[in-house]
Amino acid sequence: MRFVIIGGDAAGMSAASRFKRKAQDAEVVVLEQTHDVSYSACGMPYNIAAPGRPIDDLVVRSAQVFQQKLNIDLRLGHRVTRIDPSQKKVAGESADGAFELGYDKLLIATGAAPKTPDIPGIDLPGVMSLKSLGHGRAIKEYLAAHTVNRAVILGMGYIALEMAETLRARGIEVAMVKPRSQLLPWMEPQLSEMVQEELTANQVGLYPGQDIESIASGPDGLKVRCSRDTLPADFVLCAVGVTPNSELAAQAGLDLGPKRAIAVDRAMRTSDPDIYAAGDCADAFHLVSKERTWIPLALRANRAGWAVADHLLGQEVDIPGVAGTAVFKVFGLEVATTGLSAEQAADHGFDPRSATIESVNQAHSYQGKTEPIKAHLIGDARTGLLLGAQMVGRQGTALRINSAAVALSAKMRVADFIQCDLAYAPPFGPVWDPLLTAANQLYKKL
Amino acid sequence: MRFVIIGGDAAGMSAASRFKRKAQDAEVVVLEQTHDVSYSACGMPYNIAAPGRPIDDLVVRSAQVFQQKLNIDLRLGHRVTRIDPSQKKVAGESADGAFELGYDKLLIATGAAPKTPDIPGIDLPGVMSLKSLGHGRAIKEYLAAHTVNRAVILGMGYIALEMAETLRARGIEVAMVKPRSQLLPWMEPQLSEMVQEELTANQVGLYPGQDIESIASGPDGLKVRCSRDTLPADFVLCAVGVTPNSELAAQAGLDLGPKRAIAVDRAMRTSDPDIYAAGDCADAFHLVSKERTWIPLALRANRAGWAVADHLLGQEVDIPGVAGTAVFKVFGLEVATTGLSAEQAADHGFDPRSATIESVNQAHSYQGKTEPIKAHLIGDARTGLLLGAQMVGRQGTALRINSAAVALSAKMRVADFIQCDLAYAPPFGPVWDPLLTAANQLYKKL
Repeated sequence: MRFVIIGGDAAGMSAASRFKRKAQDAEVVVLEQTHDVSYSACGMPYNIAAPGRPIDDLVVRSAQVFQQKLNIDLRLGHRVTRIDPSQKKVAGESADGAFELGYDKLLIATGAAPKTPDIPGIDLPGVMSLKSLGHGRAIKEYLAAHTVNRAVILGMGYIALEMAETLRARGIEVAMVKPRSQLLPWMEPQLSEMVQEELTANQVGLYPGQDIESIASGPDGLKVRCSRDTLPADFVLCAVGVTPNSELAAQAGLDLGPKRAIAVDRAMRTSDPDIYAAGDCADAFHLVSKERTWIPLALRANRAGWAVADHLLGQEVDIPGVAGTAVFKVFGLEVATTGLSAEQAADHGFDPRSATIESVNQAHSYQGKTEPIKAHLIGDARTGLLLGAQMVGRQGTALRINSAAVALSAKMRVADFIQCDLAYAPPFGPVWDPLLTAANQLYKKL
Repeated sequence: MRFVIIGGDAAGMSAASRFKRKAQDAEVVVLEQTHDVSYSACGMPYNIAAPGRPIDDLVVRSAQVFQQKLNIDLRLGHRVTRIDPSQKKVAGESADGAFELGYDKLLIATGAAPKTPDIPGIDLPGVMSLKSLGHGRAIKEYLAAHTVNRAVILGMGYIALEMAETLRARGIEVAMVKPRSQLLPWMEPQLSEMVQEELTANQVGLYPGQDIESIASGPDGLKVRCSRDTLPADFVLCAVGVTPNSELAAQAGLDLGPKRAIAVDRAMRTSDPDIYAAGDCADAFHLVSKERTWIPLALRANRAGWAVADHLLGQEVDIPGVAGTAVFKVFGLEVATTGLSAEQAADHGFDPRSATIESVNQAHSYQGKTEPIKAHLIGDARTGLLLGAQMVGRQGTALRINSAAVALSAKMRVADFIQCDLAYAPPFGPVWDPLLTAANQLYKKL
């Protein structure tokens, strides 16, 4: 039995390790086009913030460990260019030339790639993206080799926001630009206003609502021409989103899902019975909408990799999908979301009601200053179900979202969420957790 | 319609306010034996830690606000000594002499009282308890008026532990003593060891496994004589637990539950159809064991007060009970628990399995040092249900317990909890939340 995996990051190496550990006689071959495997992509902004920290600090487990300790046939620098499902083989290229390899079972774990706007100058030196460790390495080397005083970030998603903090920590002026007028379009405006204020307080220039027309290089560095402003830069980060690496799957005739992610069932099987897909290249079911979605995140990638291994081992696998839980830090703020926004909920046929409240991160009776937490909760008027939650605040905000995430997994009604026995002690919050306060308000509207 | 409430703290005033707001024509009389209402009892250790902070800072809403803004007939210094259910009236004493008052509906919200061991010297000056605001005020005045260099704390529960931190913050030497040999008997030993190390690192002397025999007063201050050691003290805090104030209810013939708490149904009704009980004097159903329990905590008191008001207003009320979620801080450690311990689970007829893991509070890739978090999860081998969770660690530990608390409310199986889409970003934890890592290990044992 030969299990071939295309891609050696979170999903691929999770599947490889878990499967090989339990099926020691099986042949497990991982084909990775780069020379990096199993690294913390999410940690890159924090590594880039620290010039003295080696980028390889982000490697969770080295290729040698996979090869020697786990006895996985991990082949680096092997780029797969074609999957032939009828012959059950893959073909590709490596430094040694073309290769072909047959499989009994195949896992596509090719991840996602940064999107780049189709504008003049996007390929100029100093215009870079951040998704793979190679990207992180290149950015770090660029910042070390050049005098970078001014950066322009294209996009305002969470990678863009994390990188704004990173670049400010390195003393670089930062301007952020994007075509849409809202900073975080999925977020309730009272909450995204807090994020905007935090960015402004940290001297990040915000230029929303401007098309990015071109990037030009001149004696003074780069110039990002937008519909109204022209922003000077020594470095441009392109962070306008990512797209699933699904070309191989598409060429092989596999079904694609939302955003052209590879369509998989609850055991990570594609439309071909011998081919799985997992990680950022694959779609998922959404716990709340019950429809296919594409939300590429690390926990899902790990979990999906395990699910593939378990299914190959003959176990019953039926992973229930994602809630879209995501948290990130922007300077001193913690931002958290799970489930659907009110707008998304309406798009999926719910009858959404929402409540937005302001609470605090600790009891007044505790020492020091309380900090505000804003919480926004969405429920369905027809069924009473909780549909989503969003929170913004300082320390002690992000982790609170998990209680809503579990409630979504449990398909809990707002009326039941209100009754949950959440923790209280003065150092950690008010008697009523901010999410409970929001739920109490939301319940009145359902 | 006259609604009489005995006791003006969390449960009593929550019920009074919520009922009066919606039933403005009703007469709401609150009989409070002290002159303090609606204060943050849980905040007392932090207030006592700050000598310059007035104790009345802990008052959430003053008597005047209840009387004048909310039009509640709040009578301070009114101690009820008897309930006569057959005549539907209460009798008592105030500064103006004896009083009697008829009721249509009655709420007993008399709270709990500190237990005191029956030993010689327990009534000496400088030997004090902490439960009511009056206690807090007395302790604060005592510490201000006396030179207190050495304190002995009787008991090692969470109030004892919080007060150990408070007294150390005031530069006072602290010794803690108790009869049982375990620091926190309900806690998994690997976790309670972390608490013990934290106390020792903060120079708190621990004397478990010693009976407390007497307290004596001499020229050098107090002496706490225990079975092996005699501990000198300028101040003794008695924190050996609390007991429900249920004497009035017992005398009135109402049913009592565990620990002699007043037995109530899911709408807070006692065995008398016109009498409710709520807050620390009343029992509750336990979500996991499905049996009656007595776990006096603030959120429950508030929620129960609201439930009484809602029920009086004719709404359907069926509050589902408590999970026993509790968090507290001990110096730099956060301690959290919800649900049943393995031992409690066995006592309630479950077939418990447990897993204990060590994880971290942030990803390695984030800046600074990771801190350990230990998590202990309990499940039932027969049903696969999650039964309880415990966690100890530094910053970013306590709030994580909420995801387990919601899972208990949802009666979730460990297999389903594993699949919850919890938050991940490097500043907030590893890819797999410590509770998920524990759940993955526990699942293998079920």
